[in-house]
Amino acid sequence: MQTQVQRFSLVRDRSVQLAAPLSPEDCCAQSMPDASPVKWHLAHTTWFFETFVLEPREAGFAPFHPAFRVLFNSYYNGVGAKHPRAQRGLLTRPSLEEVRAYRFDVDARMVRLLANHPGDAALASLVELGLQHEQQHQELMLTDLKHLLACNPLAPAYANDPLQEAAPPPALVFLPFDGGLAEIGHDGHGFCFDNELPRHRTYVAPFSLASRLVTNGEYRAFIEAGGYRDPALWLAEGWDRVASGELAAPLYWRRPGDDSADGEWTEFTLHGLSPLDANRPVTHVSLYEADAYARWRGARLPTEAEWEFAARHASIEAGHLHPAAADAAGEGLAQTFGACWQWTSSSYAPYPGYAPAPGAIGEYNGKFMVNQYVLRGASCATPAGHARASYRNFFPAGARWQFAGIRLAQ
Amino acid sequence: MQTQVQRFSLVRDRSVQLAAPLSPEDCCAQSMPDASPVKWHLAHTTWFFETFVLEPREAGFAPFHPAFRVLFNSYYNGVGAKHPRAQRGLLTRPSLEEVRAYRFDVDARMVRLLANHPGDAALASLVELGLQHEQQHQELMLTDLKHLLACNPLAPAYANDPLQEAAPPPALVFLPFDGGLAEIGHDGHGFCFDNELPRHRTYVAPFSLASRLVTNGEYRAFIEAGGYRDPALWLAEGWDRVASGELAAPLYWRRPGDDSADGEWTEFTLHGLSPLDANRPVTHVSLYEADAYARWRGARLPTEAEWEFAARHASIEAGHLHPAAADAAGEGLAQTFGACWQWTSSSYAPYPGYAPAPGAIGEYNGKFMVNQYVLRGASCATPAGHARASYRNFFPAGARWQFAGIRLAQ
Amino acid sequence: MQTQVQRFSLVRDRSVQLAAPLSPEDCCAQSMPDASPVKWHLAHTTWFFETFVLEPREAGFAPFHPAFRVLFNSYYNGVGAKHPRAQRGLLTRPSLEEVRAYRFDVDARMVRLLANHPGDAALASLVELGLQHEQQHQELMLTDLKHLLACNPLAPAYANDPLQEAAPPPALVFLPFDGGLAEIGHDGHGFCFDNELPRHRTYVAPFSLASRLVTNGEYRAFIEAGGYRDPALWLAEGWDRVASGELAAPLYWRRPGDDSADGEWTEFTLHGLSPLDANRPVTHVSLYEADAYARWRGARLPTEAEWEFAARHASIEAGHLHPAAADAAGEGLAQTFGACWQWTSSSYAPYPGYAPAPGAIGEYNGKFMVNQYVLRGASCATPAGHARASYRNFFPAGARWQFAGIRLAQ
Amino acid sequence: MQTQVQRFSLVRDRSVQLAAPLSPEDCCAQSMPDASPVKWHLAHTTWFFETFVLEPREAGFAPFHPAFRVLFNSYYNGVGAKHPRAQRGLLTRPSLEEVRAYRFDVDARMVRLLANHPGDAALASLVELGLQHEQQHQELMLTDLKHLLACNPLAPAYANDPLQEAAPPPALVFLPFDGGLAEIGHDGHGFCFDNELPRHRTYVAPFSLASRLVTNGEYRAFIEAGGYRDPALWLAEGWDRVASGELAAPLYWRRPGDDSADGEWTEFTLHGLSPLDANRPVTHVSLYEADAYARWRGARLPTEAEWEFAARHASIEAGHLHPAAADAAGEGLAQTFGACWQWTSSSYAPYPGYAPAPGAIGEYNGKFMVNQYVLRGASCATPAGHARASYRNFFPAGARWQFAGIRLAQ
Repeated sequence: MQTQVQRFSLVRDRSVQLAAPLSPEDCCAQSMPDASPVKWHLAHTTWFFETFVLEPREAGFAPFHPAFRVLFNSYYNGVGAKHPRAQRGLLTRPSLEEVRAYRFDVDARMVRLLANHPGDAALASLVELGLQHEQQHQELMLTDLKHLLACNPLAPAYANDPLQEAAPPPALVFLPFDGGLAEIGHDGHGFCFDNELPRHRTYVAPFSLASRLVTNGEYRAFIEAGGYRDPALWLAEGWDRVASGELAAPLYWRRPGDDSADGEWTEFTLHGLSPLDANRPVTHVSLYEADAYARWRGARLPTEAEWEFAARHASIEAGHLHPAAADAAGEGLAQTFGACWQWTSSSYAPYPGYAPAPGAIGEYNGKFMVNQYVLRGASCATPAGHARASYRNFFPAGARWQFAGIRLAQ
Repeated sequence: MQTQVQRFSLVRDRSVQLAAPLSPEDCCAQSMPDASPVKWHLAHTTWFFETFVLEPREAGFAPFHPAFRVLFNSYYNGVGAKHPRAQRGLLTRPSLEEVRAYRFDVDARMVRLLANHPGDAALASLVELGLQHEQQHQELMLTDLKHLLACNPLAPAYANDPLQEAAPPPALVFLPFDGGLAEIGHDGHGFCFDNELPRHRTYVAPFSLASRLVTNGEYRAFIEAGGYRDPALWLAEGWDRVASGELAAPLYWRRPGDDSADGEWTEFTLHGLSPLDANRPVTHVSLYEADAYARWRGARLPTEAEWEFAARHASIEAGHLHPAAADAAGEGLAQTFGACWQWTSSSYAPYPGYAPAPGAIGEYNGKFMVNQYVLRGASCATPAGHARASYRNFFPAGARWQFAGIRLAQ
Repeated sequence: MQTQVQRFSLVRDRSVQLAAPLSPEDCCAQSMPDASPVKWHLAHTTWFFETFVLEPREAGFAPFHPAFRVLFNSYYNGVGAKHPRAQRGLLTRPSLEEVRAYRFDVDARMVRLLANHPGDAALASLVELGLQHEQQHQELMLTDLKHLLACNPLAPAYANDPLQEAAPPPALVFLPFDGGLAEIGHDGHGFCFDNELPRHRTYVAPFSLASRLVTNGEYRAFIEAGGYRDPALWLAEGWDRVASGELAAPLYWRRPGDDSADGEWTEFTLHGLSPLDANRPVTHVSLYEADAYARWRGARLPTEAEWEFAARHASIEAGHLHPAAADAAGEGLAQTFGACWQWTSSSYAPYPGYAPAPGAIGEYNGKFMVNQYVLRGASCATPAGHARASYRNFFPAGARWQFAGIRLAQ
Repeated sequence: MQTQVQRFSLVRDRSVQLAAPLSPEDCCAQSMPDASPVKWHLAHTTWFFETFVLEPREAGFAPFHPAFRVLFNSYYNGVGAKHPRAQRGLLTRPSLEEVRAYRFDVDARMVRLLANHPGDAALASLVELGLQHEQQHQELMLTDLKHLLACNPLAPAYANDPLQEAAPPPALVFLPFDGGLAEIGHDGHGFCFDNELPRHRTYVAPFSLASRLVTNGEYRAFIEAGGYRDPALWLAEGWDRVASGELAAPLYWRRPGDDSADGEWTEFTLHGLSPLDANRPVTHVSLYEADAYARWRGARLPTEAEWEFAARHASIEAGHLHPAAADAAGEGLAQTFGACWQWTSSSYAPYPGYAPAPGAIGEYNGKFMVNQYVLRGASCATPAGHARASYRNFFPAGARWQFAGIRLAQ
């Protein structure tokens, strides 16, 4: 079995590998306040270990660079000042090289610290939190970079191999679940974030869940049937965004007749601009679009309790840069983990009895529990081993730059 | 027992009475997009009856004025175009006199229609919806007007009698409730809105609810203890609003040292500017402030299920223009209805199996079920007979111009 | 000859007469921050006399209402605080009646003061400034009200008599002027504002000026020829506004096919909605549009020095609510005063040696001398006796709610 | 004497040299819409030669990269679509290396074209325009980069040698000029931009001009005397910006007590953060600040005609990265060229008879002639040989990121 030092090295190395195909410029730019530069992710995840692990525990601690405490703080008020979020892309210094040196230095000190404290459960737990945190940022590195590359008229690819056409998925059927008085939340085996706790009782009425995600082809039919022109299908806030032109198709779709296309929809992916693949799941949609699509189809989005109830025995796929199609040979609940995050109708709220950790580390989750919606599952960009049935991802209803797709319920 | 025609006349007349102390100018101005002019409320509630009752049912229907269909449509896409919400205050024509004539005409035709269709249950049900709708707007007439008057440096009063100092309320204690598998939602006796349906089963863990609302005095102590200076107490979105200066005290409080005050907090009320009464409930706070206050006090806000579970047997007060203090002689759950709406931690979402009515009338509730939070109870401005335990009011987390207060839970 | 008391009464009375056809609601609403309510104009012009004349000169001065000093201060920092400009429409109190009482009180005290100080030249001069100031606001009362009424889908008329179709104007010819070393600025006979001083020498190269203003018909031809689609005709800032949809036709034109029209352009006027009259001068255009039109026609806008040089001997028309067409029988420079203000290419800047008056009264003109452009002439809404060749009106290049038209130069 | 090919190579090479101390990240980031990345400047100046010289004149012309036509078009509507100005910093591709290759390719083709067309005066003139254009961008490379580096809390230096303390300048005296009927505009010897033409007659009244620029020490005295607290000193628009906190000191000054300073003002320069040097000219001020300072000192800003009249015989300094102090031994008009651009009170307008060139190249100057003010002289960042008395630089009144200083007049 992996030691924590081995796991530490593997996870930390993975971040560097993700940046390997990129130029210093690619790693520095920021395309919108919600997305951060790759270099910033590389530094911030390092800052997390330096600030929360080394600073209170390393003998004779001295910061790698005193200014980094502010530069690479994301949102921890308990740690002090923060560089303005929208100006992360202006940090041309430190260079990517210097950030790599920062990682190297902190990694070496972390390994030394871990070696000096075998069996320190509190330390091990904090380090695991740091690694899970880093894995979250690994996913963001890809989604934030995708947003940046999509802003470039040259439509540059992150991965040079083109996306292959997928085989048709099986028919979408609704799988029935009994529900009842269920236990929801993390069961205590292995790591979880504080927002998955406490495990608690919930009543779930009988429901059905779609056997797979909605495909691009199915969503295109919604567009072609006038889905974006009928206010009766939309939440009022969503319709405002449709009316203003903000929402007209999934984020990275390019409409036939746009410069880059000749009569067919295309989709910008991490493999570059591709013909829209009707068989792959639709992704990069907002909650508003997911909800409108469901209504059009006489269905609805699941609650997070329904989703968790149904997904407890699902298996996990991983390791792609774009959502794969459902396997035609599959049965049961497909594409639970590893294709797209799945919007639920549940707002992000504390579980009964929830209490964040004391101190700055407690700012991890709780303070975001308003005006966000829970997504369940895991996407193609989620690191392997990071997905689990109780995991609660969350974004505002209008967020589209994550790999978010649509699982229907009834 | 009241006939529907009698009830129709009473409710309709009440709207006109509410406007009686006001000048045409007072009834025309709009202080922010969220608040509408009194004249607009008078016309819109009339439009509702004209459009949804008379138009499909009156023989030889002709509109009172063809332009009113657009001018006084609030948000019903199914009815057609709408005058822009933020420009309602620019409608100096039709005059208040003409709007009164519009009401008079529609009222007469409504009474005739009701007389001609005795025992028409569908009609009766639609008319009752219109009356409940009008009662909601009666409350908004007061809250919207209060916001307008508060913008005027002259601090004009709506009611000329000054607010009396209230007696000290009883101590705030937490009343325990067992919870369990409970039925939530309207029980079918009497009118309800579609969002209170269907009645359904929910599991409620054991909880406690504060015996009364938080008072001005208690909230002032929170301010004086630095509650608005400690980010650890706030949801991240709330802290952003504190940091920007948007939130610094309840909406209508004026800080000692402001022009209008001499060393003591004052509060703008419908009775004009008053010394802050420590014994009355705090009101006009956002969800962010309610949540931060609860956290400071080691408590939390209730869920809407908890609130409804506890309030099923509470009694109803009504008929004030400012929240009254809790009665020191009371026991059990006080101030459930008739003082302030009470923020819950529950986002506004459809109940399992919820379905809006077909057609434009179905736009009443469902399409607003995103990024809003449920308030329960009823305020001093809520019409008598309008309050009930299953009633779901809803506003965005930052809304403060309603009479919203704080009920703690644990 | 008129005494100053007589003149005072006539000018003051004129303001009240202008408001006579309006309801209290019409007088209270504000359609945009740049435009003020009629009631505010009535009060502010009174405040001017109270603050600058009565306060320093009346024995035992006491303000009519202490709060009015702040409520009706427009922009005089030297006087103290100001009610926010964008919230003037929220002042439903004081009522129109109370403002009339304010006027009545100040008028009576002013008449008494004037009677008590015969031959006080400084007083007479200050009072004349107040009257000229009031006349400026009389024009604004009409233009601000027009903007408000135009926001109302009912398109209400200020004057009930419909606009008559005008006769065709004479051909537009360019009249040559020699120019040379000229004296520009007010010549010292009669009243002038400080910005018309000092009279000074300027060199004016030979130039030609159009014999009349550009008509609606000529401007419509520019639109139909694609004038709003060719960036080569526009200043870059103007083109940005065209591209954003802000500029597409003169402010009050309604395009054929809009709700209110059936195949022909219409124009909203103070007489209500009228068919577009091809023979009347185009009005309510921005400097950007005036400049683009001139370029399209191979001409340019005049400088203010050219305009003043040419206009020194022009005669004055007045007393309409919409620009009249040029008289076909006329020769020489027509429509110099009394139809539309005329955009010049000159930015609003101090004349050499300009010095504002000391004290708050000196804030009248000088502090606005940046990013505004000079308009010359006088419009149909300018009070009789207010127009003169040296008068410098000024507005930002994008302002359109004044009666601004186009005089071409070469 | 230099051939044009030699000049071409020297100017083109200078741009590359300016970028030499910078990393690819430094060259890619954009700190605000008004400032462009260094890489974009390198590409755009190349695009200018490719589009306006090679495309119409090179046999068998093929673009270096078809997408560059759009990516590196700044504002020429006549050339077609443009990449959005605010998103230039998102162009991580093409890389800096590729842009250097683009330059190399176009340079080689340009040299070939020039060799093949000796004595082609139209070509020579167009190439000279391209070189002057490139020199303008060389100055912008430095000012835009300075703005970017100033956004970085690390305050990185462009040049590593620290700024030396300057010797005290001579006293500021006002030098009298007779004025009279003067010829203004370019005299026809050597290159000029179209906005310097036609040379024309203007009457200039007698005036005085300050012998040198206002120093940091003098400006600091203005701040310490409350200059930013007295509205009477400011244009109304300027005061709005003071009141909102936008203007509080020159752009790159850091106030004593800010993080980076200990009791003394510091200034961010291209040499890094330096103690504020009282003897050097104040720079990076807006027109509002220059105007307020002048008013405080009982002076005013010169008109552009006055400035040109006085500067015709001044000499030229150049080649610094920060404004040098005036030489104490100097007499006559000092710091005319080579320290700071100097705000004038003249808005940027066409000279009488001005006509832009036909075609896209005519978009160079004329379309910006609104809401901008003329600056005269040349700054420390202006390329040698680029400065002349008739040169008209122009920026909006609020622009501060250029090296703009204050020359007083009376």
